[in-house]
Amino acid sequence: DGRLGFPGGFVNSQKRTLEDGLNRELLTKLGEAASAFSVERTEYRNSHAEDTTHVVAHFYAKRLTLEQLEAVEAGAPKAKDHGLEVLGLVRVPLYTLRDGVGGLPAFLENSFIGAAREVLLEALRDLELVEPGSVLNFKRHSFRQPSLNSRT
Amino acid sequence: DGRLGFPGGFVNSQKRTLEDGLNRELLTKLGEAASAFSVERTEYRNSHAEDTTHVVAHFYAKRLTLEQLEAVEAGAPKAKDHGLEVLGLVRVPLYTLRDGVGGLPAFLENSFIGAAREVLLEALRDLELVEPGSVLNFKRHSFRQPSLNSRT
Repeated sequence: DGRLGFPGGFVNSQKRTLEDGLNRELLTKLGEAASAFSVERTEYRNSHAEDTTHVVAHFYAKRLTLEQLEAVEAGAPKAKDHGLEVLGLVRVPLYTLRDGVGGLPAFLENSFIGAAREVLLEALRDLELVEPGSVLNFKRHSFRQPSLNSRT
Repeated sequence: DGRLGFPGGFVNSQKRTLEDGLNRELLTKLGEAASAFSVERTEYRNSHAEDTTHVVAHFYAKRLTLEQLEAVEAGAPKAKDHGLEVLGLVRVPLYTLRDGVGGLPAFLENSFIGAAREVLLEALRDLELVEPGSVLNFKRHSFRQPSLNSRT
């Protein structure tokens, strides 16, 4: 809907497991290349409850080979939801440019759906893809800085 | 670099035209599918000068058929700059959901490179893809609203 988020959806937990629901959702959102792998219980990372909606989002992170990632990117425009719920697929920059803003800091200034931003940060920290100190830094500065954003 | 922007670059105006430079840049950023069309002088929309860098950005908008757009999307992951300068390709939502936020308003809350946000809004208005009143509305609210963004 114009914000950044992760593929996911609701699961009837009496009928199927969370992982089964997630893997089906990945096919719809990312396309057929997602059938080359499946997300397993061991890849569960964290959960976030939303105060207002009483929704609990469970987050999984899957490590792909570069070939698998490229196959997903190549197939994504043919996914069922592409052009509808999904407007595109972007990689998360895991670097910070020398100006201290470009890269992950700038990426985190985008608008995210629900708890997607926090969920991402937590997973990046747990997977040790960013230094723990830098995550704290992003959290502290998660309010918007007018000097960066309010260009009129 | 984690922000949203348009494909483009610098042109040595003594050696080639702006349109020639742009069309070469589109090949690098969007991939070979961009060779199916070329952006012409008549598709020039507007120019924005940046105070600090003394760079003047000239913006062009090209109308594609759905087939051309889908070809660009399918070929984009094979573009030279994909995974480097370009982290992905997203469509701009030209609708507003019933909640008044989802769609274009939420999209415009993302972080943009340089004047990309203003350039986009101006072109959408000139091309009559959004109602003139709604653009004014986006401009007025272009400062960040803490209630929408500072989720910690």
